[in-house]
Order: sequence, then structure tokens, then C-alpha cells
Amino acid sequence: MESLISYAEEQPPSSLMTNSSSLKQESNESGSPKCVGGFVLVHAGAGYHSESKAKEYKHVCKRACQRAVDQLRAGALAVEAVTAALVELEDSPFTNAGLGSNLNLSGEIECDASIMDGKSLHFGAVGSISGIKNPVLVANCLLNEAQKGKLSAGRIPPCFLVGPGAHDWAVSHGIPPCPSEKMATRFSLSAYKRNKRKMELAEGTVPGQNRTKKRRQSSENGNGSGCLDTVGAVVVDLEGNVAAAVSSGGLAMKHPGRIGQAAHYGCGCWAENSGNMNPYSTAVSTSGCGEHLIRTMLARECAAAMQSEDAHQALLEAMQNKFISSPFLTSEDRVLGGVIVLRCCRCVEAQPSPNIQGILVEFLWSHTTESMCVGYMSAQDSKAKVTDRDAGGETGEGTAGEAVGDGGREPGGDGAEAGGSQVRLK
Amino acid sequence: MESLISYAEEQPPSSLMTNSSSLKQESNESGSPKCVGGFVLVHAGAGYHSESKAKEYKHVCKRACQRAVDQLRAGALAVEAVTAALVELEDSPFTNAGLGSNLNLSGEIECDASIMDGKSLHFGAVGSISGIKNPVLVANCLLNEAQKGKLSAGRIPPCFLVGPGAHDWAVSHGIPPCPSEKMATRFSLSAYKRNKRKMELAEGTVPGQNRTKKRRQSSENGNGSGCLDTVGAVVVDLEGNVAAAVSSGGLAMKHPGRIGQAAHYGCGCWAENSGNMNPYSTAVSTSGCGEHLIRTMLARECAAAMQSEDAHQALLEAMQNKFISSPFLTSEDRVLGGVIVLRCCRCVEAQPSPNIQGILVEFLWSHTTESMCVGYMSAQDSKAKVTDRDAGGETGEGTAGEAVGDGGREPGGDGAEAGGSQVRLK
Repeated sequence: MESLISYAEEQPPSSLMTNSSSLKQESNESGSPKCVGGFVLVHAGAGYHSESKAKEYKHVCKRACQRAVDQLRAGALAVEAVTAALVELEDSPFTNAGLGSNLNLSGEIECDASIMDGKSLHFGAVGSISGIKNPVLVANCLLNEAQKGKLSAGRIPPCFLVGPGAHDWAVSHGIPPCPSEKMATRFSLSAYKRNKRKMELAEGTVPGQNRTKKRRQSSENGNGSGCLDTVGAVVVDLEGNVAAAVSSGGLAMKHPGRIGQAAHYGCGCWAENSGNMNPYSTAVSTSGCGEHLIRTMLARECAAAMQSEDAHQALLEAMQNKFISSPFLTSEDRVLGGVIVLRCCRCVEAQPSPNIQGILVEFLWSHTTESMCVGYMSAQDSKAKVTDRDAGGETGEGTAGEAVGDGGREPGGDGAEAGGSQVRLK
Repeated sequence: MESLISYAEEQPPSSLMTNSSSLKQESNESGSPKCVGGFVLVHAGAGYHSESKAKEYKHVCKRACQRAVDQLRAGALAVEAVTAALVELEDSPFTNAGLGSNLNLSGEIECDASIMDGKSLHFGAVGSISGIKNPVLVANCLLNEAQKGKLSAGRIPPCFLVGPGAHDWAVSHGIPPCPSEKMATRFSLSAYKRNKRKMELAEGTVPGQNRTKKRRQSSENGNGSGCLDTVGAVVVDLEGNVAAAVSSGGLAMKHPGRIGQAAHYGCGCWAENSGNMNPYSTAVSTSGCGEHLIRTMLARECAAAMQSEDAHQALLEAMQNKFISSPFLTSEDRVLGGVIVLRCCRCVEAQPSPNIQGILVEFLWSHTTESMCVGYMSAQDSKAKVTDRDAGGETGEGTAGEAVGDGGREPGGDGAEAGGSQVRLK
């Protein structure tokens, strides 16, 4: 049995310019899938990346997709597959998550991560956690523990832990600690020194220099280039469950204890299976300036927007109205962020037999930053596809079709048209 | 010039029963206001209170209202008045906020607090902060600092700080530290000992006793009675700006580092002035089980619901559909929470002259817990009113009218009817 995913129509590029941010829409193509059983979309952050870093990002995005697909092929649920993808992304010394994360003002690494399971709607998050190589594992463990019900004496299990308490909880739940000196890389340490020097110059506190500069200033000195590269992933498994996760070392030179969107419910990630009120299952993971993403609750806003018929248009409008032109960010001179989005629905009309239901998967991404490295892979694909664009903010889109039997893995019938793209599964 | 607030119609009581939670609606009355210029509604938590504690709660709610009204009369903005109310609530050794907060598993006090300004839509929050008597002051300071714009070298100021980093930031911004031993009270220390003993019994870890009990169990042992009494307030100032705040010591015997709704954007409090999309200004503060309030984003959901015409009905429906029957809480055997809500709009039709606009204020509260102590006061009132009901969950409601000149304090014309209540201002 052979399946084919093809994108029949190319979207003409169009752009939205608002303040310093822009959106450009385009579509992408995908190869011939080989087997069915799920889909993963990952990102290595919306940011400002050097050429050399972009190459590494592509590699790690591919590996992360492969890890998730390996899990999916082995029958794992979406929440397990998304965790596997995140571990790979965190383990890269080039991403700003886990190993190699940005250092804070005190030269320490403090990470945020969260995960959401669209099936149970449970959520787990850690914030400002140090000495743990894979913060997403702690978030996932919190999610799993919360699903087991109450603790002794009727205590309600936590869904969000921070700081040393989060570290101790992780270790007591079997997650090994990692010495802080092993978390920092040569790259992150030299970036810290550069940033520290930049701050001292801006504040006029360089030893021997007169204090002439103001503490506060405009954004002319940038925002710590390359500091926004939070990582994340969204997954749909062969049963049609969705999950989303996100992990970040946070802004470079952040104040110790600062929490960004990656630990914040509704802001860093969102996953919600279809239900009575929602015809589509949706999963979203965000990247960018945490404060902007928190105050706009961008993950949840994008997920809610995805219930509209035209996913591409809905994402463009959500990015424009709920982020770039959001009344919550009117005082910001530049709005920095990106999202990856996955939505899916069961295609009853595409059923080749009553026992087999098709699942139509649409995936999109959008960002206002210079670049955003994105990778995606279906369990039918032999390898992941990656893309990153150096043009101004953009919106990408694709549609993947998959068909799963009730508990089996039989491919289904024709996919439906969505946006300007077509899916055909045979 | 004299004004009169009267509630012409009593709402007939009705109740909604869902699982173990119920909502009962009723209305309340208010006296003759004496001057105009703002309104405050406070709560001392939705929980399970002893008679003696309920009395103390009433006292502190009255004092908190008075503090906010003093500020409003002196021309303070809503965000300043709501902070003043919270400081009073935190300073009470009887509330589970600031001084006298619940102790965590390690016998330490870690507090959450947040504040939102409906005018600027800025938000400030601290989580798991120790050694600070008034966490709301840190949240308010974060909000104020963020409004000043970027830090040196283009760094974005934080909106959410946790743990030791939050403590150090507070002290460096002029908020005095408070020794931990001064934060605990005789009451909180004895509650800790009682809870610890209860846990040891449940876990079979009492010294000399055989380990026979399971670690996890049903909620038969309660949820640490009296541990839900988070405090909060919502305010509208004489210009019609709204603000909301919330502060909590968190669940008794929580794991160190656990963050509850009081530090979580959209979950602990919400404030949003009217705008193009919102005819009403809304402010909400929540109380109850943090994990339930986080996963349902109850503050923001209630605020969004308040854009419906019938505030009372909208709150009942929000509590029922977005909380008690929420798909996010299907696995919970008991859903614990309460909200106070304020909404207001300008009554153009009530203008006695083109320079004077009336502001119609409606205030409501609802809870699924046994009791919730609520106090409210208009800047026109000579003293605050308080109420707490020991019946099952309930919804209360009132309507207050006020009229302010453009920059002045002249009372306006007749108030409009809203829900079943009437307002008349002369």
C-alpha cells in the first residue's frame, strides 16, 4: 500500500507589515510518506541566528523529529513522543534549552519547560530550575504524577514547580541531577561574557570608566541576539491524540528567578483533543520573548483560532490581532515571537471502510522574528524535512494526511483540501 | 448633593448542583453612599472556616476596604488602591497570605501574588517567594518597573519572578526583607504540626508505627481544611480604571516550589479596561485550589464572560461551564474555587451634563466552597459591608452606581438597571 502527500497549490506570498514586525505567507512541500501513524512538528526557536547556528539547528530538528517518530512507530502516545523530541532538542548544545542554555545575570542556568496532553488536558511545568539536564522530563513527570490522583492526606499534586523545590522534586522522582558546570557550554559562557560587557558599557559600570550612561535605554542595543531560541514540538499520535511541549533557558542576562512563557500555562504550549465544542484537535508551541508571549497567552489564542475553517487565514489573523497588534503589547516597540501549530480532525468522508478513519493533519508556523528553524516528519516519512527562512517574519503551512485504523495502522482514503494545500493518501 | 444606591429587586434564590459543588444565587443590599469616587470588593478566601476565623475575616475585609477607599478618596489609581487593600489582607495573621501563610512540606512559608492593571494591561507576579511580608508589593513593583520600558542593553524587564531571585529583586528595589520566623504565627505553626501528623498517619510513617497505609489515597481526609483562604481584591477608581490583585500562601503542606493560581497570569486575577472589543471594564480575583484555577484559567474566563449583558447569569454559567463542569477538571472529584467580580461601564444616558459621565458598577461573587468572606465599599460609603455564607457554594451580586466628572468628582444622573438590581444616583 502506498501513500502520497502532495501540495497541489502554492500559496502566493503576501505580507503583513505592522510596526516592526511582518508576516509573510508561503507553503511548503513534502515527500512521499512510507508508513502511517502520527506526525511531529518541531522548532528550534524564533530568533536571530547565524548561518553556522542555523545549520546545527537543522540537524537537531531532524534528529528530534526522528526521535518522536521512532516513539510513534513503537505505538507511543503523543505526550511520550513529544517528550522524546524535546529531550533531543534540549540535549543540543546549540539550542537555548537544557544543555547550553543562556546564562542569567548571575552567570547561572535556570530553565523553564512545560508539556500539555491534549487527551487528559493535564499540564506539567517547571520554572527557573537548575541542575537538571532535561527540564521537559520533570514537566512530563509532574503531568504523569498529577494523573495518578491525590497525594497522601488528600493533598492535591502540583502542576507547576519552580526553583530548588522543583530540582529536589525531580531528583526524588528519579530524574538524575546534572552539575551546573556541565550545563554550560563554551558558547554560552562566551556569550555571557559578551553580554556582561555590553551591559557594563551601557550602564557605564566598566571598571575605570565614568558612570555616564543611563540605566534604561531604548532597544538600540538589540535584545541579546540569538537569545530567543526556545525549542518546542507538537505531535499527533496514531490514535489522533495531540500533545505539545516547550523548553527554554530564557532570555540571556535575565534576572535570577525570571519565568518566561515556557513554564506558563496557555503561553508556552497548548494541546487539546477535539471535543463537543472543538471540531479540531489542536497543538501549539511558541517561541520568542517570554513576556510578550505570556501577556498575550499566544499558545492558547492560536489554538482557539485553529477552530476556524481556514487554518492558514486563522493563524495569520491570530498573529496579527492577538500578537502584533495586541492591546496587551501596545507599549512594546517590537513584538517578538513565533509559533508552530498542528491541527487535525477525523475525515469521516475519507473512510475506505467503516473500521478505518482518516485523520487529516494540518501544520503551520508563523513568526515575527528574523528566522525560525522548523522541522517536520510523518511516521510515513523516511526522513524529516527542515526549513528556516532568513527573511522577515513569515507564516508557513503544510497539510499532511494520515489514516489509522481503529487500533490498527491501515491507511485511509483521500484527504480533504484545507487552505491552499491538498493531501492525497492512497 | 446626595446620592442613593438602592436595590429594587431581590433575586429569587436558585441553585445548580453538579458533582459535589453547587451554586446558589442571591442578592444583597447596600446602604446610602456619601461621596463618589470608586469602589472596592475584597475577599478573604473561599474555604472552610471556623466561626472564630470568620469573625476575624470580616474585620480584615472591612479594614482592607477602608484602606482602598482611603486611597481612592485621595485620588489614587485603581492599581494603587487594590495594592493597599491587599497589604491589609496580607498583614492579617488569620489569612493565608503574607504574615501567617500556610507552611509548606518543609515547614517554610513561600508566597504567590500577582496584580493586573486594567488601564495599561500590565501584569506583575511573584511565586514561591520567602522572607517578604507583603508579596503584593513586589508584584506591584514588577508591574511599575515593566511600565518604565527596557532595561540596559535592551533587556526586557521581567513580569514574573520566583524563589530566591524574586526575594533579591524585591530587596534591591527597596522592599524590606522580613525574617521567616516573623512570618509564621502560632496558628500556622500548630496547623503545620497537625497536618504533618495527619500525613504521617496516612503514609504510615509515624515513628514506631508499621508502614501499612498507601501513599496515595482518596480525598477522604479532606484537603487540609482552611487552607484555601487566598485573599484578593478588585477596584474601580474614579476615572473608571479597574485593577485586580490576589495573594496566597498556597496549599498547606505543598511541595516547596509549588506555584498556585495566585502567581499565574489569567488564573489568579484579571483586569481589563473597556476597549474596542469590550464594552465593559472587568476585574476578577479568584480563590480556591490553585491547580483547578490554573487549569481552567478561571479569572480570565470569568472576565470574558462578563462582556455578556446579564452579568449575574453570565457568572453562573461561567462557574458552571468553565469550572464545575470544565472538561479540564473531569478527573477531579471536587472542584474548589471562588471568584469576586467587578464590571463597569460608562452610562452616557445618565449624564446630567456633557461634562459628567456616570459609571455603573456591578459586583458579584461566586464560590463552590463552604464559605467565602467578601467585603465591599464604595468611596461614597461611610463603612464597608461584609458577608460570608456557610451554606454550600453560592453566587452573590450587587450593583453600585457612581458618577464622576471629567477629572472632577461631581455625581452624575440616574444609574441604569442591570440584572435585577437598580442604582439611583442624585
